[in-house]
Amino acid sequence: MAKVLVTFYSRTGNTKTLAEMFAEALKEEGLEVTLKEIEKVKIEELLEYDGIAIGSPTYYGSMATEVKRLVDESIKLFGQLDGKVGFAFTTAGGHGSGGETTLLSILEAMLIHGMIIQGDPSDLHYGLIIKGKPTERDKEVIKRKAKRMADLIKRLKSKS
Amino acid sequence: MAKVLVTFYSRTGNTKTLAEMFAEALKEEGLEVTLKEIEKVKIEELLEYDGIAIGSPTYYGSMATEVKRLVDESIKLFGQLDGKVGFAFTTAGGHGSGGETTLLSILEAMLIHGMIIQGDPSDLHYGLIIKGKPTERDKEVIKRKAKRMADLIKRLKSKS
Amino acid sequence: MAKVLVTFYSRTGNTKTLAEMFAEALKEEGLEVTLKEIEKVKIEELLEYDGIAIGSPTYYGSMATEVKRLVDESIKLFGQLDGKVGFAFTTAGGHGSGGETTLLSILEAMLIHGMIIQGDPSDLHYGLIIKGKPTERDKEVIKRKAKRMADLIKRLKSKS
Amino acid sequence: MAKVLVTFYSRTGNTKTLAEMFAEALKEEGLEVTLKEIEKVKIEELLEYDGIAIGSPTYYGSMATEVKRLVDESIKLFGQLDGKVGFAFTTAGGHGSGGETTLLSILEAMLIHGMIIQGDPSDLHYGLIIKGKPTERDKEVIKRKAKRMADLIKRLKSKS
Repeated sequence: MAKVLVTFYSRTGNTKTLAEMFAEALKEEGLEVTLKEIEKVKIEELLEYDGIAIGSPTYYGSMATEVKRLVDESIKLFGQLDGKVGFAFTTAGGHGSGGETTLLSILEAMLIHGMIIQGDPSDLHYGLIIKGKPTERDKEVIKRKAKRMADLIKRLKSKS
Repeated sequence: MAKVLVTFYSRTGNTKTLAEMFAEALKEEGLEVTLKEIEKVKIEELLEYDGIAIGSPTYYGSMATEVKRLVDESIKLFGQLDGKVGFAFTTAGGHGSGGETTLLSILEAMLIHGMIIQGDPSDLHYGLIIKGKPTERDKEVIKRKAKRMADLIKRLKSKS
Repeated sequence: MAKVLVTFYSRTGNTKTLAEMFAEALKEEGLEVTLKEIEKVKIEELLEYDGIAIGSPTYYGSMATEVKRLVDESIKLFGQLDGKVGFAFTTAGGHGSGGETTLLSILEAMLIHGMIIQGDPSDLHYGLIIKGKPTERDKEVIKRKAKRMADLIKRLKSKS
Repeated sequence: MAKVLVTFYSRTGNTKTLAEMFAEALKEEGLEVTLKEIEKVKIEELLEYDGIAIGSPTYYGSMATEVKRLVDESIKLFGQLDGKVGFAFTTAGGHGSGGETTLLSILEAMLIHGMIIQGDPSDLHYGLIIKGKPTERDKEVIKRKAKRMADLIKRLKSKS
C-alpha cells in the first residue's frame, strides 16, 4: 500500500486541524497515512514515504521557521527524495495575505528535491489554503485535494 | 502636482471597475490621475508619470497577455522608469486562484525596471486582489491602498 | 508511444535553438516529439499530447506575450489538460535576471491546468535556464532534463 | 545620518563575506551601518533603522531557517516597520539554483511589513545573488546595489 506522511507545524491549532482532516481524507482513499508534528519527524524517515504533504501557517509569505528547519535539514537526503509526490497546505489570515506564496515556498523546496507536484484546475490551484480554522464546509475541497494526491501516488506507484 | 497612470486590461469589466475606483481614490489624495485602457497607452507616455498602477485580471497565475504586451514593449524605455513608484491590482475568481502570483508577476516586472514598490502590513499585502466585481464594501481597502501609493509618491517627489 | 509537444517563442533565435536541442534529446528518449513555434499551435492540439514543454525568453521576469497568449487562450480547454506532464525552459540575459521567475510563471500556469511537474535535485531545479545561445557545453544538462521529463511521462503513461 | 542594519546568516562564510562587502559599500555612501549576525539581532532593534538589508544563503529556494526565525518573530513589530527600506542578498550554488526565489521570499516578507523595495534595471534585478564566495570582481555590482539602497533611503529620509 502506498505510504504518505502528512506533517505540519501549528501554533493556534488551525493548521493541525487541517492536517488531521487531510490525513483522514487520504486514509479514505486507501493510503497508509502517518500524521506527525513536524518537530517529531526524523529526517531519514522521509525516505519511507511515497508522498509527503507539508502544512504550515502563512507567516510573512512563506513557510514557518519550524517547517523550514526540516526542509533545510533535508539536504542530508540530497537526491533521495527524487520522484516522490509532494503536496502543500496552509492556513492563512485571509485572502491575499500570503497564502499562495507560502504554498509556493513549500512547492519550490519540493521541486528542488526533484519531487513531483500536481496542480488543480478547480480552485485553490497550488494546494490547500484555508482561512482560519477549517470547518465542515471545507471538507469537500480537502477531500478533492486528498483524492488528487492519492490518485497521483497510485498512478506512479503501480509502475515504479 | 504628482502624476499617476492607472492602466488596466479588462474583458468582463471587473478590472475596469476596480481601476476606476482606484483612480478616483488617487484623485481624492490630490494626485493628477490618467486612467487608460492598456491598449491605448503609448509606451513613451510612461515617462511622464511619477507612479504607474497596473491592473489585470488573474489569468493562469500571471498578468493577462494584453498587459504583458505593454510590459514587453517597455524594453524601449530601458533604465528610464528607474525610481518611479509602482502598484499592482487584480480581480480574481476567488481565494487561492492565482491572485497573489498575478500581482507578483506585475511587481517583478516593475522591479526589473528599477521601480519602487511598497507592501502593506494590513491585508492584501502585495496589492489589491478583489474577488469578482468590486463593490461598495471594497471601497475602504481601495482607498487605503490609494492613500499609501499617493503618500509614497509625495514623499519621493518632494525631494527628487 | 508517448507524445510530447515542444513549443516556444523566440525572437533572437536563442530559445529556438534551445527548443530544438530539447526536442532532439526527447526523441533520443524514444518519445514522439512535435516541435512548433507557439504562434502555430492550435489550442485543441494540446489535447493530443502526454507532455507539453513550453519555452520563452526571459522578458521582465515572466513568459513573453506570445507565450502568454496561448496560455490565456487555453482557458477553452479548462480541465482537459489535467494530469498531463509539463516542463518549462527559458533563455535569459544572465544570472539573476528573471530566469527563475519566468520558469515559475509557466509552471504556475501548468499547475492551474492541473498538470504534473517535477523538479530536479541537480542544478537548474525548476527547469532549463540557459544564458544566451545554447552551446555544446549545455547539451549534457539539456539531455538530463529531457530524460527526466521522458521518464515521468513513461511512468504515468504505462498505467493511465 | 540615515541608519541601516545589514544582517545575515552564514554557515560557510560566503554570505558573511557578502554582508561585509555590502556593509562597507553602504558606509562609503555615508550611511551609519550596523553589521550583525541574524542570531544576535534583538527584534525591537529593527525599529531603529531606516533601512534593513537581509542576507541568506540559498537553501531550498527560500531564506534559511535562521533568517525566517527573525522574520517570524518580527510579528511583534506588526505595523511598525511600515515605510522602511528593504534589500535582500543571497549566495547560491549557481545559476538557476533558487537564488531568485530566495530573494523573493525575503522581499515578500518585507512587503508584508509595508516596507519599500526597489529593483534595478541592470542585472540582478531583485537583489544581490552571488555564486559562492564573493570576490573582487563582485565589488562593482555590490557597490552599485549599495548606492541604490543608500540613495533611496536618503530620498525618503530627507522628508519623512
